[in-house]
Amino acid sequence: MLLLTIDRGDPLPLALQIRDRLAAMVEAGVLRAGERLPPTRTLAAMVGVHRSTVVRAYDELRALGYLESRAGSYSTVRRRVRPPAAANGAPGPTRSVLAPGRVNWAAAASPGARAVHRLSAPSAAPPSICDPAAPPSFCDPAGANPAAGQAPIDFERLAADPSLAPGGEIRRCLRQVLVRQGGAALDYADSAGWTPLREAIARRMCAHGVAVDAAGILVTGGAQQGLDLALRLLTRPGDEVAVEAPTYGMAHALLRLHQVRPLEVPMRATGMDLEVLAHLLRTRQPRLLYTMPNFHNPTGVTTGQPHRERLLAMCEHYRVPIVEDGFEEEMKYFGQAVLPVKSMDARGVVIYVGTFSKVVFPGLRIGWIAAPVEAIARLASVQNAACLSGNTLAQAAVARFCGGGGFEQHLRRVHRVYRRRMQAMLSGLDEHLPPAVARTRPDGGYTLWLTLPGKAADEPGICDRIARQGVKVAPGRRFYARPPAEPHLRLSIACVDEETIREGCRRLGRALG
Amino acid sequence: MLLLTIDRGDPLPLALQIRDRLAAMVEAGVLRAGERLPPTRTLAAMVGVHRSTVVRAYDELRALGYLESRAGSYSTVRRRVRPPAAANGAPGPTRSVLAPGRVNWAAAASPGARAVHRLSAPSAAPPSICDPAAPPSFCDPAGANPAAGQAPIDFERLAADPSLAPGGEIRRCLRQVLVRQGGAALDYADSAGWTPLREAIARRMCAHGVAVDAAGILVTGGAQQGLDLALRLLTRPGDEVAVEAPTYGMAHALLRLHQVRPLEVPMRATGMDLEVLAHLLRTRQPRLLYTMPNFHNPTGVTTGQPHRERLLAMCEHYRVPIVEDGFEEEMKYFGQAVLPVKSMDARGVVIYVGTFSKVVFPGLRIGWIAAPVEAIARLASVQNAACLSGNTLAQAAVARFCGGGGFEQHLRRVHRVYRRRMQAMLSGLDEHLPPAVARTRPDGGYTLWLTLPGKAADEPGICDRIARQGVKVAPGRRFYARPPAEPHLRLSIACVDEETIREGCRRLGRALG
Repeated sequence: MLLLTIDRGDPLPLALQIRDRLAAMVEAGVLRAGERLPPTRTLAAMVGVHRSTVVRAYDELRALGYLESRAGSYSTVRRRVRPPAAANGAPGPTRSVLAPGRVNWAAAASPGARAVHRLSAPSAAPPSICDPAAPPSFCDPAGANPAAGQAPIDFERLAADPSLAPGGEIRRCLRQVLVRQGGAALDYADSAGWTPLREAIARRMCAHGVAVDAAGILVTGGAQQGLDLALRLLTRPGDEVAVEAPTYGMAHALLRLHQVRPLEVPMRATGMDLEVLAHLLRTRQPRLLYTMPNFHNPTGVTTGQPHRERLLAMCEHYRVPIVEDGFEEEMKYFGQAVLPVKSMDARGVVIYVGTFSKVVFPGLRIGWIAAPVEAIARLASVQNAACLSGNTLAQAAVARFCGGGGFEQHLRRVHRVYRRRMQAMLSGLDEHLPPAVARTRPDGGYTLWLTLPGKAADEPGICDRIARQGVKVAPGRRFYARPPAEPHLRLSIACVDEETIREGCRRLGRALG
Repeated sequence: MLLLTIDRGDPLPLALQIRDRLAAMVEAGVLRAGERLPPTRTLAAMVGVHRSTVVRAYDELRALGYLESRAGSYSTVRRRVRPPAAANGAPGPTRSVLAPGRVNWAAAASPGARAVHRLSAPSAAPPSICDPAAPPSFCDPAGANPAAGQAPIDFERLAADPSLAPGGEIRRCLRQVLVRQGGAALDYADSAGWTPLREAIARRMCAHGVAVDAAGILVTGGAQQGLDLALRLLTRPGDEVAVEAPTYGMAHALLRLHQVRPLEVPMRATGMDLEVLAHLLRTRQPRLLYTMPNFHNPTGVTTGQPHRERLLAMCEHYRVPIVEDGFEEEMKYFGQAVLPVKSMDARGVVIYVGTFSKVVFPGLRIGWIAAPVEAIARLASVQNAACLSGNTLAQAAVARFCGGGGFEQHLRRVHRVYRRRMQAMLSGLDEHLPPAVARTRPDGGYTLWLTLPGKAADEPGICDRIARQGVKVAPGRRFYARPPAEPHLRLSIACVDEETIREGCRRLGRALG
């Protein structure tokens, strides 16, 4: 006999009340697998509702997997889940004379998968390569939390400040797209991207001096996916690629995933050392050169026009593709912009990787590649095989955001904010840091680079002292394949306001003084 | 002297009119690079507007890259783009004594990139592997358009019907997420996925008998990205994997991208031939087995419980991971569901790949992997290195869509629609096809499989006859690595209504009669 009561004062529809009560009985084991439920007519009479209400409740339970029934037959409780603990626990019922076994996932993993998994595994030593744009699980440096309950000052995170995100404007764009495009906005897009977005991106690239139209643009799931595609296009396991040292930590993670070796070119105050690069291009013939000419991560260095011209000429000479990471191209808020290397690429050797993540909305995962059409065609084939297409709705909304002037408006707003933050950081460091600590003076972007006196081995101790002052920074070690000679720190102004920056500088002064 | 007129009757704000007129002059070469613009005060007086209007216009032009200016100085026209044609054309100014060169992108491409690019390249022969879920550029079988202007009947496309997409409901979910989560909905998510979505997916998996909680779920950018991750985790170039023959065409594309060889196991009426599989497992030790037990693509076959149990026991014995593709798990609309192989996976050998694309909204690119936590941890590391995180906003909206009951409601609706469509297709084929054409009778999903008398070499001719009748179908060849013995066709009911299906069957009858 089934005891089931409903509450007519509850705003939840009666059918859903019945559904929830019956589901709870199954969960609690009151109703067991294979047990028959009363016919809908009977239950309706027992509870005092219309039969259609029970029919709907049973339908819901069937959709949820609680019940099964054949046309014209009883509904019965479906064979259901064991509790999760059992999944890796006790052996199930014997089904075969074959001896069963488990898979050793650690041993089954490919070399690349193993290499990136080691980076994220918790261990005594902090991971050497890691970037705060990455989610917290991957990147949680030990000891960064101060003893006090108060949240630390975050000079580590490098991602557009969520408090500046244009949520209302994006909401409007999404609504307009869904109203006007209907189902098409939820369907697959061309794997090269939503055409109006490709056009909008091409216009922005033109504004940066890059001669490109929509055919030369591939929309990607963020800059990271753009870099992944470039590596998939150009490298095989065992290859070598030239990178700046230091460079973006998650680029090192990608190289490990691809089982590609980095050839590190040291960064100077004006950009990567071109004499070292020339030597590497001549003697090692790397598959590609990865470079960030603007607001380099982590150092904040922006290279000048002559440096860019020489770099391009050298790569043209050796026919080595350049992967130019323009992740903060739009973040020039002091002085005059230098045009990207891609803007001079008359011979088509540059694959330019861009993104909306560092300026607007990382969570929409929209970036792009601007490249010669022969490269775009091949990158699109790879992307198509790897993931079919991108997020149509997000792409259409961003196209509308750009087309309606929202992007430029947002850019002006964040430029004002970040110009003030960077000024606060620069003057705070001038005031509080000891003169022996060298630092870069970026023209834009989010990051500054400190070089401390001492040996690289001192770096963990320095980071500990800073953490005890309640400040989070990125240890320099993360940005190298081989340990550097001196201790370094990367500071980011991305997600901290001016007042907090000033206090953070005071604390840094105390930790490093 | 600058001639600039504004139109006070135009609804476009005056500042934007000035912006557009000046931009047009730059584009037309009337204003040249380096040329000075009048001071804002002067231009304001000339045009008869407030000075702040001109300041705003100049700001916009600066943001668009037309102008540059230093604080307290004149605004000048920025050095800008060459037209796109020149990008791959005439050499630029000489910058170096080094001899410049081009990159040969075809030669620079990796073997995997080359293999997938060949699939998409237009050629005399139609691509052998291709799937209509893929965007049109990748998949445009020659000769599919009938001579008449009328659109062909599309029995080829395999993707949720956009006309059934719950656009209004998704719009509400997106709005709610943006209002409640604010900037967090536009920020990076944990690379394993938005936690409430992982929980919602875990609940759906439990409804299908799979004992899993959120820790065993990784959100991916669609099932295709899930398969890509599984291959990245488990394979190295040169490895072998066991697949059904025929199987999902884009799985073959992925294998080529990974430079992994398929070991084809023939499909029978009840599922893959387990005797052949046993032999391959014993003698070749493939890295993994890829299988679709429900509504197999392309054949529509659903395997029974005994087949699933034997398959699992064999893979457990040889410790070969199973990648179970549950792309249409929810699309059972006739008879009783068979639980996925993953539901019996007491020893943790199954990586289950699921997706919302085939039921609701392919364009949001949300799928998932359910797997043992040791496998999830490694897959999350790979995903993190490859793309940092998924689309936070879309994930949060889908979590809300599931949590609010929208998913189940949508499922009931599409079940009704597709049940009727499948019935129309089955009875239409019974009525119009010659008895010599064998066909499957699926219990759900979208696809049916025809086996025609004759030799495989007849297939292109058969497809031509069908195309001339104004019907698009998927040639069987697409779903094999090695050509099959007989001609086959895959029919899909995904995006055609009942009336169209009946007409399509009549035309198929004429073409094959």
